[in-house]
Amino acid sequence: MDTIKQYVQTHKDRFINELIDILKIPSVSADSAYAQDVIDMANAVKESLLRAGCNVVELCETPGYPIVFGEKIIDPNLPTVLVYGHYDVQPPDPIELWDSPPFEPVIKTTEIHPEGAIFARGACDDKGQMYMHVKAFEYMIQTNTLPCNVKFMIEGEEEVGSKSLSWFVERNQDKLANDVILISDTGMISNQQPSITTGLRGLSYVEVEVTGPNRDLHSGLYGGAVANPINVLAKMIASLHDENNHITIPGFYDKVEELSAAERAEMAKRPYSEDAYKKALDIAEVYGEAGYATNERNSIRPTLDVNGIWGGYTGEGAKTVIASKAYAKISMRLVPHQDWEEITELFAQHFESIAPAGVKVKVTPHHGGQGYVTPIDSIGYQAANKAYTETFGVPAIPVRSGGSIPIVALFEKELKSKTILMGFGLDSDAIHSPNEHYGIFNYLKGIETIPLFYKYFVELSR
Amino acid sequence: MDTIKQYVQTHKDRFINELIDILKIPSVSADSAYAQDVIDMANAVKESLLRAGCNVVELCETPGYPIVFGEKIIDPNLPTVLVYGHYDVQPPDPIELWDSPPFEPVIKTTEIHPEGAIFARGACDDKGQMYMHVKAFEYMIQTNTLPCNVKFMIEGEEEVGSKSLSWFVERNQDKLANDVILISDTGMISNQQPSITTGLRGLSYVEVEVTGPNRDLHSGLYGGAVANPINVLAKMIASLHDENNHITIPGFYDKVEELSAAERAEMAKRPYSEDAYKKALDIAEVYGEAGYATNERNSIRPTLDVNGIWGGYTGEGAKTVIASKAYAKISMRLVPHQDWEEITELFAQHFESIAPAGVKVKVTPHHGGQGYVTPIDSIGYQAANKAYTETFGVPAIPVRSGGSIPIVALFEKELKSKTILMGFGLDSDAIHSPNEHYGIFNYLKGIETIPLFYKYFVELSR
Repeated sequence: MDTIKQYVQTHKDRFINELIDILKIPSVSADSAYAQDVIDMANAVKESLLRAGCNVVELCETPGYPIVFGEKIIDPNLPTVLVYGHYDVQPPDPIELWDSPPFEPVIKTTEIHPEGAIFARGACDDKGQMYMHVKAFEYMIQTNTLPCNVKFMIEGEEEVGSKSLSWFVERNQDKLANDVILISDTGMISNQQPSITTGLRGLSYVEVEVTGPNRDLHSGLYGGAVANPINVLAKMIASLHDENNHITIPGFYDKVEELSAAERAEMAKRPYSEDAYKKALDIAEVYGEAGYATNERNSIRPTLDVNGIWGGYTGEGAKTVIASKAYAKISMRLVPHQDWEEITELFAQHFESIAPAGVKVKVTPHHGGQGYVTPIDSIGYQAANKAYTETFGVPAIPVRSGGSIPIVALFEKELKSKTILMGFGLDSDAIHSPNEHYGIFNYLKGIETIPLFYKYFVELSR
Repeated sequence: MDTIKQYVQTHKDRFINELIDILKIPSVSADSAYAQDVIDMANAVKESLLRAGCNVVELCETPGYPIVFGEKIIDPNLPTVLVYGHYDVQPPDPIELWDSPPFEPVIKTTEIHPEGAIFARGACDDKGQMYMHVKAFEYMIQTNTLPCNVKFMIEGEEEVGSKSLSWFVERNQDKLANDVILISDTGMISNQQPSITTGLRGLSYVEVEVTGPNRDLHSGLYGGAVANPINVLAKMIASLHDENNHITIPGFYDKVEELSAAERAEMAKRPYSEDAYKKALDIAEVYGEAGYATNERNSIRPTLDVNGIWGGYTGEGAKTVIASKAYAKISMRLVPHQDWEEITELFAQHFESIAPAGVKVKVTPHHGGQGYVTPIDSIGYQAANKAYTETFGVPAIPVRSGGSIPIVALFEKELKSKTILMGFGLDSDAIHSPNEHYGIFNYLKGIETIPLFYKYFVELSR
């Protein structure tokens, strides 16, 4: 199957330029100011699938942004691979920390990417990884090597909770019927050591509002006599972790799966350097739940992080004010068996219960999703591992990721099929951060590896 | 001296319109975007003093905004009153909470102000109260009843710490020589019960920055494994108060003056309704240091309040990010004998000492000032009390205020004279808040009362 290598070599400049074109579209789903750009992006994906060889492509209407659905059915008796990806991206802020504009892609080399990387919001998450599948599909069509049926489902609300996707999947089980779901929206250990994500954390994302006095007050005339919503919010947030960094919400850990010593020993084999980790982040010390290693804290353990906080005077200079309101966005990463809706409810009950009498508290759930674990003895996992082994020269290592792709659990529930997470990104790609980028090596390697997954999945399915 | 009543009646519409004109100038000293407006306001004050009858008025250059100095010397052998005020105002935000634009003054009646109040940023703090002195001076000139010499010193940086004023006062002791300093920048108990502020709290205002990882991180991939600067900042802020709402900074209370039971009993006589207080602020409970009443917590006790906090994603929707940095603006109100520079140092040392190893902390002092207490047996206090008694029909009650006018302590140190705080504002005037206003009654009553202070001060000085 060397021809795929040749095909990539022949077309790589076009592959890169096509990706750069869609990276210029600021499809930020969280901010309604970008609504038209999100729609433009959906149409760009639709066009790319038609060009690549789908015989049917539609923009499926939903309560929110449309879902791009495309398919190529070559034989109803052959297996069907459903490719999922998303065309929306995270907001680019803080803009001022980008070395180049987030929606003006540039290629620069880095220590980890000597062949160069494309810097832009969405380069890795998920436009670059999603587009690898479009180009791998193009290759199989052009060389007449597509061994099975393919369906594409590319959504536009992954970064805001995939509400419309859930709505769509629940109503289209037949349309989406498949034998395996293939997603590239995760990372691997390094460009020398591929890995397959076998576990994902669930998510509960809420916004809290603390209201004290009915108006902003002069901190001299009222300071010390009324509850200051910012001080109170800080106290409430601080109380959500104990001195061991355990989360204090009653019932929070009740359903958390405790891994066996053997499983933890297996995880510990994953290559990891705490010094390199600290150096990369410029931190003097790691920080987290007592009794667990860094690679456990960010994968098999649930967490609670404040993602944003604001209140009072945040402008230049000084203002001696006691704000009427303070706000925070708080997300909890959950592990398998924790139900995100139950955890959201536990959080809301607890947060309201710890508010002092001097303030009012409002908790608004944003979105959430369940965690997921995929078995490594499945045909899909075996096929992916054989594909990586062939293109990287070493087998892939199974890894539990700390990230969340809530719809993976939904797919299993509604479509009754397993998901294989063939991610080609790196932790250093700065997804969700300024200067997000995706290695040219990773992009092209992904395009090379994906057709092999199809080949081995069909072989192993016989 | 009924003629002052008549004069005010005759000219009150002009007095109100002149005040409205200067309230239209957005002289916000904290925000450099308003720099030209602050200068325009300085010139407007200069013009008003010339029109009122000063024979010398200058804009004195400083390292910052100019100080308006004006004087009328009628006889070097007579006493000299130095009037201090400020022409800068607090930032207007949050703008969206104003019922009318902050720099488009409107007159509306309220329950407390049946004769109407002027709504605008600076209406009470301090343009309205400062301008009473200009109009009272105009009256004494027009009726040839000015009984002594007058000097005006109106600054433009009171809301940002009066740095340039300190610089100016230290270099101009002779120019500013006086027998008493008169300031209207405080409040009184009610329009039926005048009061004179005899104590002011000091202030230390700092900004803190907590830095975790060197970039924003994906909260799924890193959540639980690195110190989140926002969670850490919340924990650090929460730890600054113990369960009794005592401030935990070592040494913070060492120099705090403990009032005697007798003094506290005297304070407790001040008319006060906790129900009315809670109702006015729409809070279910007051909140503060254990062992002290509300009127003590906001006057004779030091406090620590967060005036602003920000970090991470604060836009629409959700962003699963761990921010690299989190910030807070924190101010401490101090009582007499606490040295603001010492407290600032104690805060910085403590705040840096409680930072966990996973973050870096930076503390930047903004500004500060000492507390102040004025004796009620001074000629100045007696003159003020006689003036209030004559115009209000009841004697003024001495009150310790929770607010800060840092330069009062500076005046005593550099100019060796006592300050009399003849305030005509009300707590309900919402200074530093949206919908700041100043009662027409209070404005005109102040103009009526001030000339009586001059009269009695000169009589009692003989």
